Amino acid sequence: MSHYQHHVFFCMNVREDGTACCGHHDAAEMQQYAKSRIKQMGLAGEGKIRINKSGCLDRCDEGPCVVVYPEGVWYTYVDRQDIDEIVDTHLVKGEVVERLRI
Amino acid sequence: MSHYQHHVFFCMNVREDGTACCGHHDAAEMQQYAKSRIKQMGLAGEGKIRINKSGCLDRCDEGPCVVVYPEGVWYTYVDRQDIDEIVDTHLVKGEVVERLRI
Repeated sequence: MSHYQHHVFFCMNVREDGTACCGHHDAAEMQQYAKSRIKQMGLAGEGKIRINKSGCLDRCDEGPCVVVYPEGVWYTYVDRQDIDEIVDTHLVKGEVVERLRI
Repeated sequence: MSHYQHHVFFCMNVREDGTACCGHHDAAEMQQYAKSRIKQMGLAGEGKIRINKSGCLDRCDEGPCVVVYPEGVWYTYVDRQDIDEIVDTHLVKGEVVERLRI
């Protein structure tokens, strides 16, 4: 079994040259929001869920982006409602959110 | 199919309070070394391999640590020879390096 049931990586890349990057789309705030929600729900930790920051996932043009492993499902998001849907539907119920998939 | 065949995350966490953390074990240098080797071998990119930095993977006591997805295989490492073995055996040949597994 996987160390984490769902291991989520938020791309936190910030490009200083003005080109597309996840860091210009509230990635830091959204990662913290997702992490806090999972913790509040008692779902954080080994055998459960881990919400991580990561360096550039190299899909900036489709971002801001996040990847959920071991499933290998990629999402984009705009706001907290999107994060809530990824948390409640994918991480809790195990169903892919097709609307946000990239 | 997964966007990346192997997606590797190096824990880059640095703790300032002196407790165990991956950042005190050359994690930055080792991540850069692995990334450069994969690029030199022509194995970097979509459908192939991505070597990423990540925030704390929360296994510092067993670290420095790295996780390979979608397989969900975790490794520790000491030096470049360990990185070479993970690259050559796992990422290229697809065989788990039991010696370095955590």
